[in-house]
Amino acid sequence: MTAASAPILLTPILLTPGPLTTSERTRAAMLTDWGSWDGSFNALTASLCDKLVAIAHGTGSHVCVPLQGSGTFAVEAAIGTFVPRRGKVLVCVNGAYGKRLAKICEALGRDHVIHETGDDVPTTPEAVDRLLAADRAISHVGLIHCETSTGILNPLEAIAAVVARHGRALIIDAMSSFGALPIDARQIPFEALIAASGKCLEGVPGMGFVIARSEALLASAGNTASLALDLRDQHLYMQRTGQWRFTPPTHVVAALHEALLQYEEEGGLPARHARYARNCQVLIAGMAKLGLRSFLAPEIQAPIIVTFHAPRDGRYRFTEFYEAVRAKGFILYPGKLTELETFRVGCIGSVGSAEMERAVDAVADTLRAMKIETI
Amino acid sequence: MTAASAPILLTPILLTPGPLTTSERTRAAMLTDWGSWDGSFNALTASLCDKLVAIAHGTGSHVCVPLQGSGTFAVEAAIGTFVPRRGKVLVCVNGAYGKRLAKICEALGRDHVIHETGDDVPTTPEAVDRLLAADRAISHVGLIHCETSTGILNPLEAIAAVVARHGRALIIDAMSSFGALPIDARQIPFEALIAASGKCLEGVPGMGFVIARSEALLASAGNTASLALDLRDQHLYMQRTGQWRFTPPTHVVAALHEALLQYEEEGGLPARHARYARNCQVLIAGMAKLGLRSFLAPEIQAPIIVTFHAPRDGRYRFTEFYEAVRAKGFILYPGKLTELETFRVGCIGSVGSAEMERAVDAVADTLRAMKIETI
Repeated sequence: MTAASAPILLTPILLTPGPLTTSERTRAAMLTDWGSWDGSFNALTASLCDKLVAIAHGTGSHVCVPLQGSGTFAVEAAIGTFVPRRGKVLVCVNGAYGKRLAKICEALGRDHVIHETGDDVPTTPEAVDRLLAADRAISHVGLIHCETSTGILNPLEAIAAVVARHGRALIIDAMSSFGALPIDARQIPFEALIAASGKCLEGVPGMGFVIARSEALLASAGNTASLALDLRDQHLYMQRTGQWRFTPPTHVVAALHEALLQYEEEGGLPARHARYARNCQVLIAGMAKLGLRSFLAPEIQAPIIVTFHAPRDGRYRFTEFYEAVRAKGFILYPGKLTELETFRVGCIGSVGSAEMERAVDAVADTLRAMKIETI
Repeated sequence: MTAASAPILLTPILLTPGPLTTSERTRAAMLTDWGSWDGSFNALTASLCDKLVAIAHGTGSHVCVPLQGSGTFAVEAAIGTFVPRRGKVLVCVNGAYGKRLAKICEALGRDHVIHETGDDVPTTPEAVDRLLAADRAISHVGLIHCETSTGILNPLEAIAAVVARHGRALIIDAMSSFGALPIDARQIPFEALIAASGKCLEGVPGMGFVIARSEALLASAGNTASLALDLRDQHLYMQRTGQWRFTPPTHVVAALHEALLQYEEEGGLPARHARYARNCQVLIAGMAKLGLRSFLAPEIQAPIIVTFHAPRDGRYRFTEFYEAVRAKGFILYPGKLTELETFRVGCIGSVGSAEMERAVDAVADTLRAMKIETI
């Protein structure tokens, strides 16, 4: 294995919001081929689902439905499965993933209304309260917990309480937050929470999953016009046979399971949250010293990904900057704002403060070499 | 890496139709994390697509659209993308995958008619000719090239000629045949051909792909009611940016690319086909010596997976037989026929005659130990 493992050391560290840098142990779990019909693989899937439901404190009330594909496939599956054909979704938007949720409603032919705030303005419970009171046709609210476009955190708990008080159902896109930011199903009423393997749980990309309120899932028959993205059918088949309905991404499943074992060994959600929060602090403080300001106010900044204003210096070109930082061992992420020139740096993955400090050093060296003034 | 790689030797060989046994080199390609926005990953995707189109001899006329998820996701995407909402599909059925194709048409609300033959009876071009002549509303024909339920091969070339003569479009589910059985887009007119990573190309499961006739793909706007499974949108985005629309299964992509390099080194399709044909011969001959008869006549048996009649002896129990053979290092597959007791053995994956002979020995030892008479 020496020849195969040697290049790992040369691989840049991904400071991107998934795919991200995984541990060697997680990747090594993919060195085994699994039979998708075999009992040992079924046991792996069952254990995976148990662990994921437990992270959401949903054991007994909720089930985990894993789904092949990227996180967006699971979002589409959740909208299609949970929103009745005559339902109506209030989509809260402050970035690209909120917009994508609305686009999914549009594609699936689900009536919806968009409540959009600025990229740096969280959705407020007051606004949701007002909108739900004004439109009794709204059956579901779709909310992005942490919007990866900027890294902004929306006030999930307060919004969930409002949605519940109005007797509507909540669908949470927790893609970038699940496993790192607490979401307790005992306190936060939701019908479906969507996340994926290659984010804060530090698995590799290739599967999403939906933590679904069991009763709502069972009551969802006849909603979806898809076979592959039918979460109820996926769940019932798995419950009956222990197997996935269609060929599972076996190696991705094994990697996520191994990543979850490490998650538990690290200390679960509190430890994961603390490490990412430290990463985020070290990053923002280090970049500030270089004169690079973060886009969001600290109180709405999730410790997942940070958007930085690009230097105003005319010599700055993102592509050149990106390639130079990459050559020093770190892969950054482009900005996603249309009006402002920004770039993003992820705080998640199998990385700690030391890597964040080295990343800041790499940025500092690059700015110097490019002769870019930041003040 | 010694600790991590040690269990590989103890892992049973998968004689299943995907996931299957992959090479160590293919699995080792998953030891690297890739940034999905990074140029090096985009180059990998582009190279992958070029190689897949070349296998189908479609360079210039066809494009490859890779899709996250299992093969079935790609089948649903192909039906949704290519069949207009007012189109009608003739679905040729002689097993579970044909039935699934019909179920997808049903779920998506596409009008369709089923032409079903027995599990051991190939679809004939004459039947398709008659059905197309009788029903002018049929816009598309859906055909399973090799039906994994039994291993039966349908006469693709002759059927494709009939479909073309009638001016209808052909959608081929080539999941179990692509890469091992020749499909030449210059001779066989089709609109879409669907396959997946974890089959005869010997990658790991986690992505499908559609080889699409470029003109038909571009003309498909407005057909699908899905965002995630919109092949046209996936293609146009990839063409524009070099990237996947939504997070790709990076490790699965890297493994498939590595598997394709080995495919080329082995000698491409002719060599892959020859190895599988030898595997199939060795298997059938060896099992025959044990008194185990294969279900299909040799002329309709594809060298992909073989269905065997279970021993009639009352002491035979599939689960016990499966576990005993598994303990000897080989994972078999259950039968999929409702009327007959059978089991299946795959001939595909990173295995050769030696492994097939050892598998036959494992079956022989198991039958002896279970005191099962086969004659």
